[in-house]
Amino acid sequence: MAHLLSTSCSLNFSSGCRSYTKPLVQDSLVFPTSLTFQTSKTPFGRLLLHRGRSQSTCTVHATTLSPSREAPKEPSYGINESSGGASKSQRVMVIGGDGYCGWATALHLSKKGYEVAIVDSLVRRLFDHQLGLDSLTPISSIHDRIRCWKSLTGKSIELYIGDVCDFEFLSEAFKSFEPDSVVHFGEQRSAPYSMIDRSRAVFTQQNNVMGTLNVLFAIKEYREECHLVKLGTMGEYGTPNIDIEEGYITITHNGRTDTLPYPKQASSFYHLSKVHDSNNIAFTCKAWGIRATDLNQGVVYGVRTDETEMHEELCNRFDYDGVFGTALNRFCVQAAVGHPLTVYGKGGQTRGYLDIRDTVQCVEIAIANPAKAGDFRVFNQFTEQFSVNELAALVTKAGEKLGLDVQTTSVPNPRVEAEEHYYNAKHTKLIELGLKPHLLSDSLLDSLLNFTIKYKDRVDTKQIMPSVSWRKMGAKPRTVTA
Amino acid sequence: MAHLLSTSCSLNFSSGCRSYTKPLVQDSLVFPTSLTFQTSKTPFGRLLLHRGRSQSTCTVHATTLSPSREAPKEPSYGINESSGGASKSQRVMVIGGDGYCGWATALHLSKKGYEVAIVDSLVRRLFDHQLGLDSLTPISSIHDRIRCWKSLTGKSIELYIGDVCDFEFLSEAFKSFEPDSVVHFGEQRSAPYSMIDRSRAVFTQQNNVMGTLNVLFAIKEYREECHLVKLGTMGEYGTPNIDIEEGYITITHNGRTDTLPYPKQASSFYHLSKVHDSNNIAFTCKAWGIRATDLNQGVVYGVRTDETEMHEELCNRFDYDGVFGTALNRFCVQAAVGHPLTVYGKGGQTRGYLDIRDTVQCVEIAIANPAKAGDFRVFNQFTEQFSVNELAALVTKAGEKLGLDVQTTSVPNPRVEAEEHYYNAKHTKLIELGLKPHLLSDSLLDSLLNFTIKYKDRVDTKQIMPSVSWRKMGAKPRTVTA
Repeated sequence: MAHLLSTSCSLNFSSGCRSYTKPLVQDSLVFPTSLTFQTSKTPFGRLLLHRGRSQSTCTVHATTLSPSREAPKEPSYGINESSGGASKSQRVMVIGGDGYCGWATALHLSKKGYEVAIVDSLVRRLFDHQLGLDSLTPISSIHDRIRCWKSLTGKSIELYIGDVCDFEFLSEAFKSFEPDSVVHFGEQRSAPYSMIDRSRAVFTQQNNVMGTLNVLFAIKEYREECHLVKLGTMGEYGTPNIDIEEGYITITHNGRTDTLPYPKQASSFYHLSKVHDSNNIAFTCKAWGIRATDLNQGVVYGVRTDETEMHEELCNRFDYDGVFGTALNRFCVQAAVGHPLTVYGKGGQTRGYLDIRDTVQCVEIAIANPAKAGDFRVFNQFTEQFSVNELAALVTKAGEKLGLDVQTTSVPNPRVEAEEHYYNAKHTKLIELGLKPHLLSDSLLDSLLNFTIKYKDRVDTKQIMPSVSWRKMGAKPRTVTA
Repeated sequence: MAHLLSTSCSLNFSSGCRSYTKPLVQDSLVFPTSLTFQTSKTPFGRLLLHRGRSQSTCTVHATTLSPSREAPKEPSYGINESSGGASKSQRVMVIGGDGYCGWATALHLSKKGYEVAIVDSLVRRLFDHQLGLDSLTPISSIHDRIRCWKSLTGKSIELYIGDVCDFEFLSEAFKSFEPDSVVHFGEQRSAPYSMIDRSRAVFTQQNNVMGTLNVLFAIKEYREECHLVKLGTMGEYGTPNIDIEEGYITITHNGRTDTLPYPKQASSFYHLSKVHDSNNIAFTCKAWGIRATDLNQGVVYGVRTDETEMHEELCNRFDYDGVFGTALNRFCVQAAVGHPLTVYGKGGQTRGYLDIRDTVQCVEIAIANPAKAGDFRVFNQFTEQFSVNELAALVTKAGEKLGLDVQTTSVPNPRVEAEEHYYNAKHTKLIELGLKPHLLSDSLLDSLLNFTIKYKDRVDTKQIMPSVSWRKMGAKPRTVTA
């Protein structure tokens, strides 16, 4: 992965949010050697400069604590109170905490009283640069985001910039932060990205699978009691002709019965990487007594959470392009700019969906109710099922209410998938633990559409159509032209 | 993987087998740049020197054709004759053709009239050097082996030395050799090796999974009709409490029925890498129409095949150590040197086993009866089931006949596995295609024991006991002391 990574960061740690009217451009000071801003457990950061043995990966470990302010002591009401709770704040490492789900989760957990550290290589921002893409929303640098959060709430979020595939970096982050839980969003998460060409396919599997292996080894080596909360995907299951259970299925066969891992039928190199992860994690739970929860997440929509709404500088990313955009969010952007909604093939593809406010809620529930040592728990993390056609109809209706003329067009399906199929996936375990879903209502769709209309001048319509074909992908590197 | 590879080869291509009485030492000329011995389709080799863009991997492509001899034209009787056969010899690329199963297979296919190329990085020999291990049998260099084969039979085997994780190398091998079938043995194949430490675990998964991804991309890019015959392992299934089917299981659940991939429960990072491979290959069959056969092989025993018996220089490797040795072969060596048979734990662990003569037969059957385009076939490749205790009893009885005093000792199980369990695995598909099994008979065990007795002075008894613990493996690199 090293060849994909370059590092830039800002050193001017002034506290407070900055005002801006134009889209933020990430600071671009580039350091020739690796840097470690060693955060102490006191509110006063220590600064260490350190040149790692590997020259290819730059490690930045920054604290946003301002020396003049003590972090307020809060009760840790994120801890499962029904089981007695914990008197000391739980320490949660959010790997991939600069991404779409990761950033919202990091803020939510911080707000709830957890001590949070973000571990991120920022490579997701690099993908956008390389592919010529951008978030619909302007997003601040991770440094500005964290500073703004501190200024608004008094809460610190530690920051470790580096690649979890670099075990030396990950070890230092573990030893320094000492997490009680690790929430692992830190993977290449786009199916189309993994299907661009051979090198992206290999990158996706290598980055995701080896990164997760490293996280497992770090837990075993440094924090044996640490609970791993790993983001999987509902896409691991594919579309079997029987009900999808949560991780396991009891099978009676030739007169004997066993409960076995639910068979997986993933349909992209990305989805496959998550299947590989699940198998690896399950093994380490059995062999080493790791405690893990695999959150097989559905397609996430929405952008606002209570915390990201607090300030423009905390705004989350919103992807609408053919590579990183996901179905409902993409349709809202298409409706906003007057582009026909692009239904792939027949549109009968049915999946589980959830509001990003439920993503952060589910992760908190998993952390507050940790798996037992040796347990590999699997929760299906979504709240409702929709077909693509159903989503298109909902967006059309919501658009009409706002005076938009929403058309729908069927485009040749770039993926290899069933376009009409049975789909019934269970999702009761998180509900049983207390999840209160935000279902997709007319008012939410109105608000999401209004949000996309607000930013519609930032839409690059060239990025809307699918550009990656499952069948036509080749071995040769695909480059993007200007 | 590049850091693990160094390359040495011999240039003095004299034809014929050489006689020797002492164990062979591999030639050790080291080349500072990469070399390509480009084999033409004529019996006269061309020699090209080429410096690759990557300095870390050395590519050697050698022909053993001696200029003075034409390869005889033979009927291709390896082709499935019942379906009409092919008039032109099938071209089979054997990846990992210098290894235990790969070498025996390459010779068998060559003997049967296939045009064979071996692709191998020779890293298996490096593992022995690094861990201080050696084959019970002295083995010749791959160059001498191929030269000897040519001299005895007149048949050429092309040789491409390089790493399939290096796609540039693999592409050149594909374009040059133009395989009709690829038999892929080229993976790190030891469960204990994958459990030595973090770096070996990561190496195993990276090497195996990315190598196989590259093979799939090479087929898609250069030889779309090529049949992939991939070596999997029965260990992918684990030990479920229901019958093990061949790759798929039909499940009726809540009133609906589907046939799905058989659930996998692998129990080492090595076994997991094979599960990952299976999932990746199944996807490419569906998405790209790849034709593939996954041979889930049991534990292989024996050493002699009709071809390796033809000359001492063709002798196969025989591993008895705690890392690469497998159950029955190891027991025979232990009996030969008067070491108690080391049963791990209770010894009720039951697995499928097969004679190496059946390995080569099964691979030929798979090649001669290729999968259809888009088919992901799974065959369970073993002939009999035994528990470890049953094997120990058989070796004890055979030893007594030869006047050996064979003791058995239970050692703490270094693995995490059930020691008493239900096991009933199906294995009819290869039989239906014509496999005639060599079952484990008293006479075979006598012969195997006599073979180990012949070489017993080469046994390093320090290597007999298990040295790798599933539970105690750590993140830090383990080094071997002298």
